[in-house]
Amino acid sequence: MITAKLTGHIWATRKADLLNGYKLMQAEIIGGGTDTGKKIIVVDIISAGIGDRVVVTTGSSARRMLGNDDMPVDAVVVGIIDEDCDFE
Amino acid sequence: MITAKLTGHIWATRKADLLNGYKLMQAEIIGGGTDTGKKIIVVDIISAGIGDRVVVTTGSSARRMLGNDDMPVDAVVVGIIDEDCDFE
Amino acid sequence: MITAKLTGHIWATRKADLLNGYKLMQAEIIGGGTDTGKKIIVVDIISAGIGDRVVVTTGSSARRMLGNDDMPVDAVVVGIIDEDCDFE
Amino acid sequence: MITAKLTGHIWATRKADLLNGYKLMQAEIIGGGTDTGKKIIVVDIISAGIGDRVVVTTGSSARRMLGNDDMPVDAVVVGIIDEDCDFE
Amino acid sequence: MITAKLTGHIWATRKADLLNGYKLMQAEIIGGGTDTGKKIIVVDIISAGIGDRVVVTTGSSARRMLGNDDMPVDAVVVGIIDEDCDFE
Repeated sequence: MITAKLTGHIWATRKADLLNGYKLMQAEIIGGGTDTGKKIIVVDIISAGIGDRVVVTTGSSARRMLGNDDMPVDAVVVGIIDEDCDFE
Repeated sequence: MITAKLTGHIWATRKADLLNGYKLMQAEIIGGGTDTGKKIIVVDIISAGIGDRVVVTTGSSARRMLGNDDMPVDAVVVGIIDEDCDFE
Repeated sequence: MITAKLTGHIWATRKADLLNGYKLMQAEIIGGGTDTGKKIIVVDIISAGIGDRVVVTTGSSARRMLGNDDMPVDAVVVGIIDEDCDFE
Repeated sequence: MITAKLTGHIWATRKADLLNGYKLMQAEIIGGGTDTGKKIIVVDIISAGIGDRVVVTTGSSARRMLGNDDMPVDAVVVGIIDEDCDFE
Repeated sequence: MITAKLTGHIWATRKADLLNGYKLMQAEIIGGGTDTGKKIIVVDIISAGIGDRVVVTTGSSARRMLGNDDMPVDAVVVGIIDEDCDFE
Protein backbone atom coordinates (compact mmCIF):
# COMPACT_ATOMS: atom_id res chain seq x y z
CA MET A 1 0.00 0.00 0.00
CA ILE A 2 1.03 3.61 -0.17
CA THR A 3 0.49 6.66 2.03
CA ALA A 4 -1.02 9.66 0.29
CA LYS A 5 -2.75 12.96 0.92
CA LEU A 6 -6.08 13.65 -0.79
CA THR A 7 -5.70 16.85 -2.80
CA GLY A 8 -8.94 17.27 -4.75
CA HIS A 9 -11.92 15.81 -6.56
CA ILE A 10 -11.94 14.62 -10.16
CA TRP A 11 -15.28 15.15 -11.87
CA ALA A 12 -16.17 12.98 -14.86
CA THR A 13 -19.80 13.14 -15.99
CA ARG A 14 -19.17 10.67 -18.79
CA LYS A 15 -17.77 7.52 -17.24
CA ALA A 16 -18.15 3.78 -16.78
CA ASP A 17 -21.68 2.95 -15.57
CA LEU A 18 -20.22 0.99 -12.66
CA LEU A 19 -18.48 4.14 -11.40
CA ASN A 20 -21.76 6.04 -10.95
CA GLY A 21 -22.10 7.09 -7.33
CA TYR A 22 -18.43 6.65 -6.57
CA LYS A 23 -16.18 9.52 -5.54
CA LEU A 24 -12.94 9.92 -7.53
CA MET A 25 -10.21 11.85 -5.74
CA GLN A 26 -6.68 12.89 -6.59
CA ALA A 27 -4.10 11.63 -4.09
CA GLU A 28 -0.49 12.74 -3.79
CA ILE A 29 1.98 10.25 -2.36
CA ILE A 30 3.53 11.39 0.92
CA GLY A 31 6.05 9.50 3.02
CA GLY A 32 6.91 7.41 -0.02
CA GLY A 33 10.61 8.18 -0.06
CA THR A 34 11.67 8.47 -3.68
CA ASP A 35 8.02 8.01 -4.78
CA THR A 36 6.86 11.10 -2.87
CA GLY A 37 5.12 13.60 -5.12
CA LYS A 38 3.64 11.08 -7.54
CA LYS A 39 -0.13 11.57 -7.97
CA ILE A 40 -2.84 9.01 -8.70
CA ILE A 41 -6.64 8.87 -8.75
CA VAL A 42 -8.39 6.82 -6.07
CA VAL A 43 -11.92 5.79 -5.14
CA ASP A 44 -13.01 6.51 -1.58
CA ILE A 45 -15.90 4.77 0.18
CA ILE A 46 -15.01 5.50 3.81
CA SER A 47 -15.78 9.25 3.79
CA ALA A 48 -12.25 10.59 3.57
CA GLY A 49 -11.97 14.29 2.76
CA ILE A 50 -9.56 16.65 1.05
CA GLY A 51 -6.46 17.07 3.19
CA ASP A 52 -6.79 13.67 4.86
CA ARG A 53 -3.78 11.41 4.90
CA VAL A 54 -4.83 7.95 3.75
CA VAL A 55 -3.59 4.43 3.04
CA VAL A 56 -4.26 3.39 -0.58
CA THR A 57 -4.34 -0.16 -1.94
CA THR A 58 -3.65 -0.62 -5.65
CA GLY A 59 -4.10 -3.27 -8.33
CA SER A 60 -6.54 -6.18 -8.17
CA SER A 61 -6.63 -5.89 -4.37
CA ALA A 62 -8.35 -2.50 -4.72
CA ARG A 63 -11.44 -4.26 -6.09
CA ARG A 64 -11.68 -6.28 -2.84
CA MET A 65 -12.33 -3.04 -0.94
CA LEU A 66 -15.39 -2.40 -3.11
CA GLY A 67 -16.80 -5.91 -2.67
CA ASN A 68 -17.45 -6.17 -6.41
CA ASP A 69 -14.88 -7.83 -8.62
CA ASP A 70 -16.42 -6.25 -11.74
CA MET A 71 -15.36 -2.70 -10.80
CA PRO A 72 -12.91 -1.07 -13.28
CA VAL A 73 -10.95 0.44 -10.40
CA ASP A 74 -7.26 -0.03 -9.51
CA ALA A 75 -6.76 2.21 -6.44
CA VAL A 76 -8.94 2.60 -3.35
CA VAL A 77 -8.63 4.27 0.06
CA VAL A 78 -8.52 1.50 2.71
CA GLY A 79 -7.77 3.61 5.77
CA ILE A 80 -7.58 7.17 7.09
CA ILE A 81 -4.35 7.73 8.99
CA ASP A 82 -4.83 8.99 12.56
CA GLU A 83 -3.99 12.68 12.98
CA ASP A 84 -1.47 11.95 15.72
CA CYS A 85 0.39 9.32 13.69
CA ASP A 86 3.83 10.63 12.76
CA PHE A 87 5.75 9.32 9.75
CA GLU A 88 7.75 10.80 6.94
CA MET B 1 -6.11 5.25 -11.73
CA ILE B 2 -4.22 7.96 -13.52
CA THR B 3 -5.16 11.18 -15.25
CA ALA B 4 -3.97 11.50 -18.84
CA LYS B 5 -4.49 13.46 -22.03
CA LEU B 6 -5.21 11.58 -25.26
CA THR B 7 -2.57 12.58 -27.78
CA GLY B 8 -3.11 10.39 -30.84
CA HIS B 9 -4.20 7.14 -32.42
CA ILE B 10 -2.04 4.05 -32.75
CA TRP B 11 -2.81 2.05 -35.88
CA ALA B 12 -1.94 -1.65 -35.96
CA THR B 13 -3.42 -3.63 -38.83
CA ARG B 14 -1.79 -6.85 -37.61
CA LYS B 15 -2.98 -7.45 -34.07
CA ALA B 16 -4.70 -9.81 -31.65
CA ASP B 17 -8.07 -10.93 -33.07
CA LEU B 18 -9.79 -9.83 -29.87
CA LEU B 19 -8.58 -6.25 -30.44
CA ASN B 20 -10.40 -5.94 -33.79
CA GLY B 21 -12.85 -3.05 -33.59
CA TYR B 22 -11.18 -1.47 -30.60
CA LYS B 23 -9.58 1.96 -30.72
CA LEU B 24 -5.99 2.18 -29.43
CA MET B 25 -4.90 5.65 -28.34
CA GLN B 26 -1.73 7.15 -26.94
CA ALA B 27 -2.25 8.87 -23.59
CA GLU B 28 0.21 11.18 -21.83
CA ILE B 29 -0.01 11.35 -18.05
CA ILE B 30 -0.97 14.81 -16.76
CA GLY B 31 -1.42 15.83 -13.16
CA GLY B 32 0.62 12.82 -12.12
CA GLY B 33 3.24 14.69 -10.16
CA THR B 34 6.56 12.98 -10.78
CA ASP B 35 4.87 10.60 -13.24
CA THR B 36 3.73 13.44 -15.51
CA GLY B 37 4.98 13.04 -19.07
CA LYS B 38 4.96 9.23 -19.11
CA LYS B 39 3.01 7.86 -22.10
CA ILE B 40 1.00 4.66 -22.41
CA ILE B 41 -1.44 3.09 -24.88
CA VAL B 42 -5.07 2.77 -23.84
CA VAL B 43 -8.30 1.33 -25.21
CA ASP B 44 -11.29 3.68 -25.33
CA ILE B 45 -14.91 2.53 -25.55
CA ILE B 46 -16.68 5.68 -24.33
CA SER B 47 -15.98 7.87 -27.37
CA ALA B 48 -13.16 9.97 -25.97
CA GLY B 49 -11.26 12.05 -28.54
CA ILE B 50 -7.80 13.44 -29.04
CA GLY B 51 -7.19 16.28 -26.60
CA ASP B 52 -9.63 14.92 -24.00
CA ARG B 53 -8.44 14.57 -20.43
CA VAL B 54 -9.37 11.13 -19.16
CA VAL B 55 -9.16 8.79 -16.18
CA VAL B 56 -7.37 5.54 -17.05
CA THR B 57 -7.56 2.25 -15.13
CA THR B 58 -4.64 -0.15 -15.51
CA GLY B 59 -3.89 -3.81 -14.86
CA SER B 60 -6.45 -6.59 -14.48
CA SER B 61 -9.08 -3.99 -13.54
CA ALA B 62 -8.89 -2.61 -17.09
CA ARG B 63 -10.43 -5.82 -18.41
CA ARG B 64 -13.50 -5.19 -16.20
CA MET B 65 -14.27 -2.05 -18.23
CA LEU B 66 -14.49 -4.18 -21.39
CA GLY B 67 -16.79 -6.78 -19.83
CA ASN B 68 -14.66 -9.59 -21.26
CA ASP B 69 -11.96 -11.13 -19.09
CA ASP B 70 -10.26 -12.64 -22.16
CA MET B 71 -9.13 -9.27 -23.55
CA PRO B 72 -5.34 -8.84 -23.77
CA VAL B 73 -5.64 -5.24 -22.59
CA ASP B 74 -4.05 -3.59 -19.53
CA ALA B 75 -5.20 0.06 -19.75
CA VAL B 76 -8.66 1.46 -20.52
CA VAL B 77 -10.34 4.87 -20.38
CA VAL B 78 -12.99 4.74 -17.62
CA GLY B 79 -14.02 8.41 -17.58
CA ILE B 80 -13.73 11.71 -19.45
CA ILE B 81 -12.83 14.52 -17.07
CA ASP B 82 -15.26 17.46 -17.14
CA GLU B 83 -13.88 20.52 -18.94
CA ASP B 84 -14.40 22.73 -15.91
CA CYS B 85 -12.60 20.37 -13.52
CA ASP B 86 -9.34 21.95 -12.38
CA PHE B 87 -6.43 19.89 -11.15
CA GLU B 88 -2.70 19.84 -11.68
CA MET C 1 9.77 -9.54 -4.02
CA ILE C 2 11.69 -6.70 -2.49
CA THR C 3 13.97 -6.30 0.51
CA ALA C 4 12.98 -3.57 2.96
CA LYS C 5 13.54 -2.33 6.49
CA LEU C 6 10.54 -1.75 8.75
CA THR C 7 10.65 1.86 9.89
CA GLY C 8 7.43 2.47 11.83
CA HIS C 9 3.77 1.79 12.46
CA ILE C 10 0.91 3.40 10.57
CA TRP C 11 -2.17 3.89 12.73
CA ALA C 12 -5.57 4.19 11.08
CA THR C 13 -8.58 3.91 13.37
CA ARG C 14 -11.01 4.33 10.48
CA LYS C 15 -10.28 1.64 7.96
CA ALA C 16 -11.63 -1.32 5.98
CA ASP C 17 -13.37 -3.79 8.32
CA LEU C 18 -11.24 -6.61 6.93
CA LEU C 19 -8.10 -4.80 8.11
CA ASN C 20 -9.16 -4.85 11.77
CA GLY C 21 -6.56 -6.70 13.80
CA TYR C 22 -3.87 -6.37 11.16
CA LYS C 23 -0.65 -4.43 11.74
CA LEU C 24 0.23 -1.82 9.11
CA MET C 25 3.91 -0.88 8.96
CA GLN C 26 5.99 1.47 6.88
CA ALA C 27 8.83 -0.26 5.04
CA GLU C 28 11.75 1.40 3.28
CA ILE C 29 13.34 -0.48 0.41
CA ILE C 30 16.97 -1.44 1.05
CA GLY C 31 19.26 -3.36 -1.28
CA GLY C 32 16.98 -2.42 -4.16
CA GLY C 33 19.61 -0.73 -6.28
CA THR C 34 17.97 2.23 -7.97
CA ASP C 35 14.74 1.54 -6.04
CA THR C 36 16.44 1.95 -2.64
CA GLY C 37 14.77 4.62 -0.52
CA LYS C 38 11.25 4.10 -1.84
CA LYS C 39 8.74 3.55 1.00
CA ILE C 40 5.55 1.50 1.05
CA ILE C 41 3.04 0.25 3.62
CA VAL C 42 2.94 -3.48 4.37
CA VAL C 43 0.93 -5.89 6.47
CA ASP C 44 2.89 -8.15 8.81
CA ILE C 45 1.56 -11.41 10.28
CA ILE C 46 4.83 -13.09 11.24
CA SER C 47 5.76 -10.82 14.17
CA ALA C 48 8.36 -8.66 12.48
CA GLY C 49 9.40 -5.55 14.39
CA ILE C 50 10.68 -2.07 13.68
CA GLY C 51 14.25 -2.25 12.42
CA ASP C 52 13.87 -5.76 11.02
CA ARG C 53 14.97 -6.38 7.45
CA VAL C 54 12.21 -8.25 5.62
CA VAL C 55 11.20 -9.73 2.29
CA VAL C 56 7.95 -8.20 0.98
CA THR C 57 5.64 -9.68 -1.66
CA THR C 58 3.43 -7.27 -3.60
CA GLY C 59 0.33 -7.39 -5.78
CA SER C 60 -2.22 -10.20 -5.89
CA SER C 61 0.38 -12.59 -4.47
CA ALA C 62 0.32 -10.62 -1.20
CA ARG C 63 -3.23 -11.83 -0.56
CA ARG C 64 -1.97 -15.45 -0.69
CA MET C 65 0.12 -14.77 2.43
CA LEU C 66 -3.06 -13.84 4.32
CA GLY C 67 -4.99 -16.93 3.20
CA ASN C 68 -8.01 -14.77 2.35
CA ASP C 69 -8.46 -13.57 -1.20
CA ASP C 70 -10.93 -10.90 -0.08
CA MET C 71 -8.29 -8.80 1.73
CA PRO C 72 -7.77 -5.30 0.28
CA VAL C 73 -4.01 -5.63 0.75
CA ASP C 74 -1.25 -5.40 -1.87
CA ALA C 75 1.98 -5.81 0.16
CA VAL C 76 2.81 -8.32 2.91
CA VAL C 77 5.92 -9.40 4.80
CA VAL C 78 6.71 -13.00 3.78
CA GLY C 79 10.04 -13.43 5.55
CA ILE C 80 12.40 -11.88 8.10
CA ILE C 81 15.96 -11.79 6.77
CA ASP C 82 18.52 -13.49 9.01
CA GLU C 83 20.74 -11.05 10.92
CA ASP C 84 23.89 -12.60 9.53
CA CYS C 85 22.73 -12.41 5.93
CA ASP C 86 24.80 -9.85 4.04
CA PHE C 87 23.51 -8.10 0.93
CA GLU C 88 23.46 -4.60 -0.44
CA MET D 1 -0.11 -1.04 -23.00
CA ILE D 2 3.20 0.35 -24.12
CA THR D 3 4.82 1.05 -27.47
CA ALA D 4 8.20 -0.57 -28.00
CA LYS D 5 10.72 -1.50 -30.66
CA LEU D 6 11.96 -5.08 -30.87
CA THR D 7 15.73 -5.03 -30.56
CA GLY D 8 16.86 -8.65 -30.38
CA HIS D 9 16.28 -12.25 -29.41
CA ILE D 10 16.92 -13.72 -25.99
CA TRP D 11 18.01 -17.35 -26.10
CA ALA D 12 17.47 -19.55 -23.07
CA THR D 13 17.94 -23.27 -23.61
CA ARG D 14 17.10 -24.05 -19.98
CA LYS D 15 13.67 -22.64 -19.26
CA ALA D 16 10.15 -23.32 -18.07
CA ASP D 17 8.65 -26.24 -20.03
CA LEU D 18 5.64 -24.11 -20.93
CA LEU D 19 7.92 -21.63 -22.71
CA ASN D 20 9.21 -24.24 -25.18
CA GLY D 21 8.42 -23.11 -28.70
CA TYR D 22 7.85 -19.50 -27.73
CA LYS D 23 10.02 -16.66 -29.01
CA LEU D 24 11.48 -14.34 -26.35
CA MET D 25 12.48 -10.91 -27.62
CA GLN D 26 13.99 -7.81 -26.08
CA ALA D 27 11.84 -4.72 -26.54
CA GLU D 28 12.86 -1.11 -25.91
CA ILE D 29 10.13 1.33 -25.01
CA ILE D 30 9.67 4.10 -27.57
CA GLY D 31 7.16 6.93 -27.45
CA GLY D 32 6.81 6.35 -23.73
CA GLY D 33 7.69 9.86 -22.62
CA THR D 34 9.70 9.56 -19.44
CA ASP D 35 9.63 5.75 -19.74
CA THR D 36 11.38 5.77 -23.13
CA GLY D 37 14.56 3.69 -23.10
CA LYS D 38 13.38 1.13 -20.57
CA LYS D 39 13.83 -2.45 -21.89
CA ILE D 40 11.77 -5.56 -21.15
CA ILE D 41 11.46 -9.11 -22.50
CA VAL D 42 8.30 -10.03 -24.40
CA VAL D 43 6.76 -13.09 -26.02
CA ASP D 44 5.67 -12.73 -29.63
CA ILE D 45 3.16 -15.01 -31.36
CA ILE D 46 2.13 -12.78 -34.29
CA SER D 47 5.40 -12.98 -36.23
CA ALA D 48 6.87 -9.62 -35.33
CA GLY D 49 10.54 -9.17 -36.24
CA ILE D 50 13.55 -7.23 -35.04
CA GLY D 51 13.09 -3.54 -35.76
CA ASP D 52 9.29 -3.72 -35.71
CA ARG D 53 7.42 -1.22 -33.57
CA VAL D 54 4.86 -3.06 -31.48
CA VAL D 55 2.17 -2.66 -28.83
CA VAL D 56 2.91 -4.72 -25.70
CA THR D 57 0.42 -5.76 -23.02
CA THR D 58 1.81 -6.51 -19.55
CA GLY D 59 0.70 -8.27 -16.38
CA SER D 60 -2.06 -10.85 -16.10
CA SER D 61 -3.59 -9.51 -19.33
CA ALA D 62 -0.56 -10.77 -21.24
CA ARG D 63 -1.60 -14.35 -20.52
CA ARG D 64 -4.93 -13.69 -22.31
CA MET D 65 -3.01 -13.17 -25.55
CA LEU D 66 -1.60 -16.69 -25.26
CA GLY D 67 -4.96 -18.31 -24.54
CA ASN D 68 -3.46 -20.30 -21.67
CA ASP D 69 -3.74 -18.94 -18.16
CA ASP D 70 -0.96 -21.26 -16.95
CA MET D 71 1.78 -19.45 -18.91
CA PRO D 72 4.50 -17.87 -16.72
CA VAL D 73 4.58 -14.81 -18.99
CA ASP D 74 3.94 -11.16 -18.09
CA ALA D 75 4.50 -9.28 -21.39
CA VAL D 76 3.26 -10.14 -24.89
CA VAL D 77 3.16 -8.41 -28.28
CA VAL D 78 -0.52 -7.74 -29.10
CA GLY D 79 -0.06 -5.65 -32.25
CA ILE D 80 2.46 -4.52 -34.85
CA ILE D 81 2.24 -0.78 -35.42
CA ASP D 82 1.64 0.23 -39.05
CA GLU D 83 4.73 1.65 -40.74
CA ASP D 84 2.94 4.88 -41.66
CA CYS D 85 1.68 5.49 -38.12
CA ASP D 86 3.46 8.51 -36.66
CA PHE D 87 3.83 9.03 -32.93
CA GLU D 88 6.54 10.07 -30.57
CA MET E 1 9.70 -10.19 -18.23
CA ILE E 2 13.03 -8.71 -17.31
CA THR E 3 16.65 -9.76 -17.72
CA ALA E 4 18.67 -9.91 -14.53
CA LYS E 5 21.87 -11.28 -13.03
CA LEU E 6 21.69 -13.34 -9.85
CA THR E 7 23.91 -11.67 -7.26
CA GLY E 8 23.38 -13.56 -4.00
CA HIS E 9 21.21 -15.57 -1.66
CA ILE E 10 18.74 -14.11 0.79
CA TRP E 11 18.40 -16.20 3.95
CA ALA E 12 15.22 -15.94 6.01
CA THR E 13 14.75 -18.61 8.67
CA ARG E 14 11.42 -17.12 9.76
CA LYS E 15 9.16 -17.01 6.73
CA ALA E 16 5.86 -18.07 5.19
CA ASP E 17 5.37 -21.84 5.56
CA LEU E 18 4.74 -22.12 1.82
CA LEU E 19 8.22 -20.73 1.13
CA ASN E 20 9.97 -23.57 3.00
CA GLY E 21 12.28 -25.37 0.60
CA TYR E 22 12.38 -22.55 -1.90
CA LYS E 23 15.55 -20.63 -2.76
CA LEU E 24 15.33 -16.83 -2.53
CA MET E 25 17.94 -14.96 -4.56
CA GLN E 26 18.77 -11.33 -5.16
CA ALA E 27 18.68 -10.37 -8.84
CA GLU E 28 20.02 -7.16 -10.39
CA ILE E 29 18.39 -5.99 -13.59
CA ILE E 30 20.77 -5.95 -16.57
CA GLY E 31 19.96 -4.94 -20.13
CA GLY E 32 16.93 -3.08 -18.82
CA GLY E 33 17.82 0.30 -20.23
CA THR E 34 16.77 2.92 -17.72
CA ASP E 35 15.74 0.14 -15.29
CA THR E 36 19.24 -1.35 -15.17
CA GLY E 37 20.61 -1.51 -11.63
CA LYS E 38 17.28 -2.06 -9.90
CA LYS E 39 17.36 -5.13 -7.59
CA ILE E 40 14.58 -7.53 -6.65
CA ILE E 41 14.23 -10.88 -4.89
CA VAL E 42 13.26 -13.90 -6.96
CA VAL E 43 12.47 -17.57 -6.43
CA ASP E 44 14.43 -20.04 -8.53
CA ILE E 45 13.34 -23.63 -9.21
CA ILE E 46 15.44 -24.38 -12.30
CA SER E 47 18.84 -24.54 -10.59
CA ALA E 48 20.19 -21.17 -11.57
CA GLY E 49 23.32 -20.05 -9.73
CA ILE E 50 24.97 -16.84 -8.63
CA GLY E 51 26.33 -15.00 -11.65
CA ASP E 52 23.82 -16.53 -14.06
CA ARG E 53 21.90 -14.19 -16.33
CA VAL E 54 18.21 -15.07 -16.16
CA VAL E 55 14.76 -14.13 -17.42
CA VAL E 56 12.39 -13.21 -14.56
CA THR E 57 8.59 -13.14 -14.70
CA THR E 58 6.80 -10.90 -12.19
CA GLY E 59 3.31 -10.47 -10.75
CA SER E 60 0.55 -13.07 -10.79
CA SER E 61 2.25 -14.82 -13.72
CA ALA E 62 5.14 -15.73 -11.40
CA ARG E 63 2.85 -18.07 -9.49
CA ARG E 64 2.20 -20.02 -12.72
CA MET E 65 5.88 -21.04 -12.79
CA LEU E 66 5.49 -22.67 -9.37
CA GLY E 67 2.33 -24.58 -10.33
CA ASN E 68 0.65 -23.50 -7.09
CA ASP E 69 -1.59 -20.44 -7.10
CA ASP E 70 -1.38 -20.17 -3.30
CA MET E 71 2.30 -19.18 -3.28
CA PRO E 72 2.98 -15.69 -1.85
CA VAL E 73 5.59 -15.05 -4.56
CA ASP E 74 5.69 -12.29 -7.16
CA ALA E 75 8.94 -12.92 -9.07
CA VAL E 76 10.35 -16.20 -10.42
CA VAL E 77 13.21 -17.24 -12.70
CA VAL E 78 11.65 -18.71 -15.89
CA GLY E 79 14.82 -19.16 -17.96
CA ILE E 80 18.62 -19.11 -17.84
CA ILE E 81 20.03 -17.04 -20.69
CA ASP E 82 22.53 -18.91 -22.90
CA GLU E 83 26.16 -17.87 -22.30
CA ASP E 84 26.65 -16.98 -25.94
CA CYS E 85 23.55 -14.78 -26.12
CA ASP E 86 24.59 -11.15 -26.50
CA PHE E 87 22.34 -8.30 -25.46
CA GLU E 88 22.72 -5.04 -23.62
